[in-house]
Amino acid sequence: MTAFETLMNFQRETGALAQVAGRLGWDQETIMPRGAGEQRSDEIAAMESVLHARRTDPRVGEWLDAIDAGALDDEGRAQLRHIRRSYERTLRVPAKLASDLARLTSRAHRVWAEARADDNFAAFAPVLREVVSLKREEGAALAAGGDVYDAMLEDYEPGATAAQLAGMFGALRPRLVALRQAVLEKPQPRALRGPFDEQAQMTLAQTVAKTFGYEMSRGRLDKSVHPFSSGSGDDVRITTRTNALDPFNCLYSTIHEVGHACYEQNVRQAYRFTPLGAGVSMGVHESQSRIYENQLGRSRAFTGWLFERMTEAYGDLGLDGPEAFYAAVNRVQNGYIRTEADEVQYNLHVLLRFDLERALIAGDLEVDDLEAAWNERFLADFGYEVDKPSDGVLQDVHWSAGLFGYFPTYSLGNVYAGCLHASLRQAVPDLDTQLSQGDLRAATGWLAENVQQYGGLYEPREVITRACGGAPSETALLDYLEAKFGAIYGLDRGLCAARE
Amino acid sequence: MTAFETLMNFQRETGALAQVAGRLGWDQETIMPRGAGEQRSDEIAAMESVLHARRTDPRVGEWLDAIDAGALDDEGRAQLRHIRRSYERTLRVPAKLASDLARLTSRAHRVWAEARADDNFAAFAPVLREVVSLKREEGAALAAGGDVYDAMLEDYEPGATAAQLAGMFGALRPRLVALRQAVLEKPQPRALRGPFDEQAQMTLAQTVAKTFGYEMSRGRLDKSVHPFSSGSGDDVRITTRTNALDPFNCLYSTIHEVGHACYEQNVRQAYRFTPLGAGVSMGVHESQSRIYENQLGRSRAFTGWLFERMTEAYGDLGLDGPEAFYAAVNRVQNGYIRTEADEVQYNLHVLLRFDLERALIAGDLEVDDLEAAWNERFLADFGYEVDKPSDGVLQDVHWSAGLFGYFPTYSLGNVYAGCLHASLRQAVPDLDTQLSQGDLRAATGWLAENVQQYGGLYEPREVITRACGGAPSETALLDYLEAKFGAIYGLDRGLCAARE
Repeated sequence: MTAFETLMNFQRETGALAQVAGRLGWDQETIMPRGAGEQRSDEIAAMESVLHARRTDPRVGEWLDAIDAGALDDEGRAQLRHIRRSYERTLRVPAKLASDLARLTSRAHRVWAEARADDNFAAFAPVLREVVSLKREEGAALAAGGDVYDAMLEDYEPGATAAQLAGMFGALRPRLVALRQAVLEKPQPRALRGPFDEQAQMTLAQTVAKTFGYEMSRGRLDKSVHPFSSGSGDDVRITTRTNALDPFNCLYSTIHEVGHACYEQNVRQAYRFTPLGAGVSMGVHESQSRIYENQLGRSRAFTGWLFERMTEAYGDLGLDGPEAFYAAVNRVQNGYIRTEADEVQYNLHVLLRFDLERALIAGDLEVDDLEAAWNERFLADFGYEVDKPSDGVLQDVHWSAGLFGYFPTYSLGNVYAGCLHASLRQAVPDLDTQLSQGDLRAATGWLAENVQQYGGLYEPREVITRACGGAPSETALLDYLEAKFGAIYGLDRGLCAARE
Repeated sequence: MTAFETLMNFQRETGALAQVAGRLGWDQETIMPRGAGEQRSDEIAAMESVLHARRTDPRVGEWLDAIDAGALDDEGRAQLRHIRRSYERTLRVPAKLASDLARLTSRAHRVWAEARADDNFAAFAPVLREVVSLKREEGAALAAGGDVYDAMLEDYEPGATAAQLAGMFGALRPRLVALRQAVLEKPQPRALRGPFDEQAQMTLAQTVAKTFGYEMSRGRLDKSVHPFSSGSGDDVRITTRTNALDPFNCLYSTIHEVGHACYEQNVRQAYRFTPLGAGVSMGVHESQSRIYENQLGRSRAFTGWLFERMTEAYGDLGLDGPEAFYAAVNRVQNGYIRTEADEVQYNLHVLLRFDLERALIAGDLEVDDLEAAWNERFLADFGYEVDKPSDGVLQDVHWSAGLFGYFPTYSLGNVYAGCLHASLRQAVPDLDTQLSQGDLRAATGWLAENVQQYGGLYEPREVITRACGGAPSETALLDYLEAKFGAIYGLDRGLCAARE
């Protein structure tokens, strides 16, 4: 066996073990006996210990040194790129710092959960200060002289830079603020009249998941507190939740997770358990979940089909017809919570976090001033005050877990979804006709062919550029949002003014 | 840290990983997407590879050498005994033989499944010959000059010997054959009138599982093709199956698995993930499942309570009352299949396999003569001919998997259950009053206190001897069976004759 083959066999075994570890998480969130939590922590720690030993195994370095990259094909070189990046990362971060961070974030998570329950940012601030300090130390080690925040981004979105994202987001913000204001000045569309049977919601969710191309023979749909997608290849499981008063929560959570899951199901089979065998970045992953959920799932054409299915399932929805249903699906309302936000406001929540966490890492903002900075920025963009920390600075888990650099990938995913949607419309001119018949095959087939099948073969930005025939830009998303919500809320002229 | 503490930490991590690997099996048999089988094989192989490396890790030998056993308490010495036994086993079997056996049994399993479907023993014989040959080689390596079959028993029932078992089973056989004949000469009790709703069966199974002390907060009940119990400590999951025409299949499979599961749930918490933290042997495990299922679950007293629950669940059962229900639960009927056999006939199926597999391993019986030997013995004990190989020599998976020495633990478990039942009756004089009210707490509490809590602390035979206040003997089981079925079938005199 060549050094490359030996390395790849080792990687595939590591990939299989990582899949097993991931399924422990799925089990824990869906069907684990409630008394098994403590024991499960030991199981997860044991798997993490095995995986850590493999990821830092010095033989990986020896194999990498022994490989003649020139003799490899494109796929082989892409595998090497991933393996080398991951291995060099482990070499740069001292073992003690890594274990200190693991212990600290475990404690910080508990402190955050309590502080959030008590609506008390001061109780969280001291441990967050420690997290920021250690993350800066880790980031400096990773950056090796380069930009610290860029080094953090590398964990979630290889190749992305803060400068590039700041440019994109800087263009998003004023037009989104203007669109939001214009929309909220208009009368609200009517909402659905519930309640909606929760078993019927799950049945409809199954139907819709299959409609979007999710293969049930290689997955499962269960319930959990927070919806998620887990696994790769032939075992990709998704979860959703039900709320008797809001059937859209279950439906659109399902479609969102189906987007993530289809990406994992549709990666080339030959890449199984290798670094190429999964979605390439958080941003590209989110582009799939978002285009499934929003550009396709919340389109006028598809909601027409969905209106019929829901009427069949629940009888009269208390709405005048598919047009009113489309408006109900796309209601824009005030709210504090990122994960509950609509298409217009979602990215404003993310941009706020991106700017604040960059300032924290750069040392331009102290943790003690973070709550005030959050509240000030929220007021500026949304026009009303944050009512309590659990609706503001304490609402998300990310910072307690040390996940700096994660937030911007949400909005990057939306930007990518906007670009892919524009290209998809060109490639499939009669898309709306198909969507209106509940036929998603051309749309999801185009995404599978142009994005999903490649897994980690190309760098994140490259896979979008290839699919769209040009570099990604935020313009497509903005144009789409202004046109869509302008039409729903009847505000074409106001928007043009805002753009001048 | 002392060498002992280091070794125990290593063992606990190995135990946690083994638990994770075991749950992959549970997942596969219950809820895994049907298209995930091939990928799952890779996951299982990766976990096995990690576990194998840990079990053969030379550091275990170094730690064992460095430990001063005299400084340990009873529990510490028991841990050492298990760890040393397991480690020395790995040293005795050459790595090539172990991997040859793994590959061979994997192939033999597939060949067996096809041969069984085709009812063609000749198609299975060649690979079985190879399995017997390699198992004899492995057994000789393990025995190191001692008895080869005894060395095989050690994997399932440490401390047991073929001579001891043959003595026990030799006493069982004539009395069981006589009891069987006497019972089958009598008229059959009436069976239940179905069908029985399968969802209602699962609901009743849940109720009965809790009644027998299974803690649902530390377990789950699901469906699978073959019922099983899986896991230890705070995450012990069981499965059952339903058959619309036979509600006893679901019920008594559940109670059987609850017996196994309660053993695992009730081991002392401090032993978690260590060699003491699980049932000590297959025989003692089976004693728990059998006493729950038979001596308790199929007793006149408990079936009286169950009759009321089933009547509530299903309405009229087509029987005259609890006495007729008790007889229906305990019907003795002709049949070929071990796993479907009643209390009277079950051990005859096992004894047949024990004698044949000992002869195979000793070289007294050739694989080519196995089918004829099986059929001859079946005719001698059951009085009618085997109709086809899938009802005879091909019915069980064990030999294809190389599990020689496993079968006798089923009957040893029944013998142990007989002894424990006799002691339980002495310890809880009003047991029948309690059982007739569906109150199993005293019975299962006595078993938890006297057997289950100890896990691997004592050797298998020792834990039964301690619980019963004397060495185990087959007499208790025989006396119990003759009294019970003598009363149901009204044959006291015939039996006394058979025993002379």
